[in-house]
Amino acid sequence: MATINNNFSKLSAGYLFPEIARRTNKYLNENKGVELMKLGIGNTTESLPLSLVDAMKAKLDLLSNRDTYLGYGDEQGDTTLREGLVKYYSRYGVKFDSTEFFISDGAKADAANIQELFGRENIIAFQDPAYPVYVDSNVVGGRTSGFDDEKGCYNNFVYLSCNEENGFIPDVPDTKVDLIYLCSPNNPTGAVMNHDQLKKFVDYARKNKAIILFDGAYSEYVKDDDLPRSIFEVEGAKECAIEINSFSKNAGFTGVRLGWTIVPKDLVSEDSEVGQINSMWNRRQCTFFNGASNIAQAGGLAALSGQGYEDCRALVNYYMGNAKIIKKGLESVGLTCFGGDNSPYIWAKTPNNMTSWEFFDFLLKVCHVVVTPGSGFGPSGESFIRVSSYGHRENVEKAIASIKENM
Amino acid sequence: MATINNNFSKLSAGYLFPEIARRTNKYLNENKGVELMKLGIGNTTESLPLSLVDAMKAKLDLLSNRDTYLGYGDEQGDTTLREGLVKYYSRYGVKFDSTEFFISDGAKADAANIQELFGRENIIAFQDPAYPVYVDSNVVGGRTSGFDDEKGCYNNFVYLSCNEENGFIPDVPDTKVDLIYLCSPNNPTGAVMNHDQLKKFVDYARKNKAIILFDGAYSEYVKDDDLPRSIFEVEGAKECAIEINSFSKNAGFTGVRLGWTIVPKDLVSEDSEVGQINSMWNRRQCTFFNGASNIAQAGGLAALSGQGYEDCRALVNYYMGNAKIIKKGLESVGLTCFGGDNSPYIWAKTPNNMTSWEFFDFLLKVCHVVVTPGSGFGPSGESFIRVSSYGHRENVEKAIASIKENM
Repeated sequence: MATINNNFSKLSAGYLFPEIARRTNKYLNENKGVELMKLGIGNTTESLPLSLVDAMKAKLDLLSNRDTYLGYGDEQGDTTLREGLVKYYSRYGVKFDSTEFFISDGAKADAANIQELFGRENIIAFQDPAYPVYVDSNVVGGRTSGFDDEKGCYNNFVYLSCNEENGFIPDVPDTKVDLIYLCSPNNPTGAVMNHDQLKKFVDYARKNKAIILFDGAYSEYVKDDDLPRSIFEVEGAKECAIEINSFSKNAGFTGVRLGWTIVPKDLVSEDSEVGQINSMWNRRQCTFFNGASNIAQAGGLAALSGQGYEDCRALVNYYMGNAKIIKKGLESVGLTCFGGDNSPYIWAKTPNNMTSWEFFDFLLKVCHVVVTPGSGFGPSGESFIRVSSYGHRENVEKAIASIKENM
Repeated sequence: MATINNNFSKLSAGYLFPEIARRTNKYLNENKGVELMKLGIGNTTESLPLSLVDAMKAKLDLLSNRDTYLGYGDEQGDTTLREGLVKYYSRYGVKFDSTEFFISDGAKADAANIQELFGRENIIAFQDPAYPVYVDSNVVGGRTSGFDDEKGCYNNFVYLSCNEENGFIPDVPDTKVDLIYLCSPNNPTGAVMNHDQLKKFVDYARKNKAIILFDGAYSEYVKDDDLPRSIFEVEGAKECAIEINSFSKNAGFTGVRLGWTIVPKDLVSEDSEVGQINSMWNRRQCTFFNGASNIAQAGGLAALSGQGYEDCRALVNYYMGNAKIIKKGLESVGLTCFGGDNSPYIWAKTPNNMTSWEFFDFLLKVCHVVVTPGSGFGPSGESFIRVSSYGHRENVEKAIASIKENM
């Protein structure tokens, strides 16, 4: 008799964004004609730069010619793109070999799949609030006995609380943990770890033989030059960290799908040999994945330099302009806001001790603005909302005007 | 201390195709100037049909306009494509709801990931020889205690031998198994299960509460009208089967990346409720995947009907023309061949009791033709080679001429 993987039944609730969609659609069905302004999902809205579109069309032309057609690429990604990324990272003064890069169809899949490399007995830690994928993938991976409804936490997982007191940057764990998920610039809080804060984690990891899984999907949003964009700017990180990144938020590739993961050959755990974790990820990708779309990879290569890179910078600047408008607007109605300076997300405290979902419903029904309830990202997200700067400028302005008018 | 997933160390050897590449490159390095003819990897070689390229370029135009740009799509795939597939399957007289379809970035990922839905204690069975992904993903999934070097088999796995005696179609297992991988038209043997043979497996699965994981990636190569192209042509299959399929081999999307999986809502195990396995896969995809590339999906939609479908049929016919030439050529030098009539693969017996790798090396070094050693697909593949009909016609003809000349 086929039995099912019971770890799925330990997942506490529907994934956050489908639940937002459900509430939003319910409201729209009951209130026909209402136009909602969406500052919820971190979904890009501006058109793909023509420089990237042209590169992808040129790839399509090559694919439509039998002399230049290519079928399967390497599971690890095209060599030119991997080498392009080596060069891209050299801006940070970080040197890699191209075989330390693995091209993927996006950061989400890599962030979810990376835990498969590690034993079930590992204790995982993550920033609370956190991108739900870190947590949910480890639930499915069998690292919790279940969800504790009273505490609002999964058993066995270590929640590193990010709150006003610590400026949304947690201290290193006070117990021994094995795998640490860090996201900077952070989704959802918008907080960015500085060099010293990141170094504390690197030191902790090296001392405790832990491994850091660093999500840098928003690195292009860091504008302050003294803030690190990659964990590998910190000395020693190559021995204890994996970095996951994406073309989604700078090149507008949320639907095109392209990302990468760096697994340094220097990375070891006490349970592994030098290079072994790199080899394991290589084997994992060769078995479970067949390479990212070659069309997307052509676009990604164009995004790394020259006009393509300039166009991506302009996209990021556009969204950061939105972030400024949102933060200023929310503060003008008395909301306390964090993030939004080196990140596309504004993390706003709910007024009048409302819960996250209460304020979500208020903004939906009264202001017709959709945001993301902070509690959906973990218990420390309660009493906050995440406001996303992804949107057309005119819609962002309308949303802020509506909030100003109705609050 | 971070520990690694020791199941990776149970994987018996490098993935088959990298090993072929290694031997081939070694030979080329030692014999500069030799031109090899490749009939090895099942990698498409003919250009993408213009009808599909045009559809993808039109999608790029939409993405380069802010009014028609779209970011994240649904993790399950675009509704239009899912509905297009519903219609595509109606040719077989099989009715589905579009929510039973899940668009993916290709059959390989789905074939590898599908086992995550099931408990570790499940006994898996598969045709031997088999596409290595079924086996390797279950090794990583923790369903074997290790590889038995003497037997050349993984412990706990049930190998359903496909051999000359049974016409390369195995009988149902004579013990109780829980998950059965079937591939028809088969990779690597080229054998196609008829309706009665498939029905025996459906009956077995229903009786034993097992689930069939059916890989139909080569279904478009079936030309005999009395052979089933989908397992769902067999009554009762919706209650016991999942089907995985792909645009790789009919639309030439090996590098573009697009596939789908059907998880019927009627599918149950005794351990699950009606609709639960469909919901689990939905949750799995929403957590571990972020949708297939929207550009590829636009191409896939074009491939399902009208000119696009006709163009894909022409591609399949081209490769089947190659298959005919290969089979006839190999038979003319006295090799016993199977498959190749409703499948792009010819399964040829090695001469003079050579092992698969011995004949591989002979063909590489003497004929300068690269094939795939059958033993790489499992113990029953020993003494066979797989010859792929993917190649430019002139290269196929050259390869066959070289074999004729040198054997």
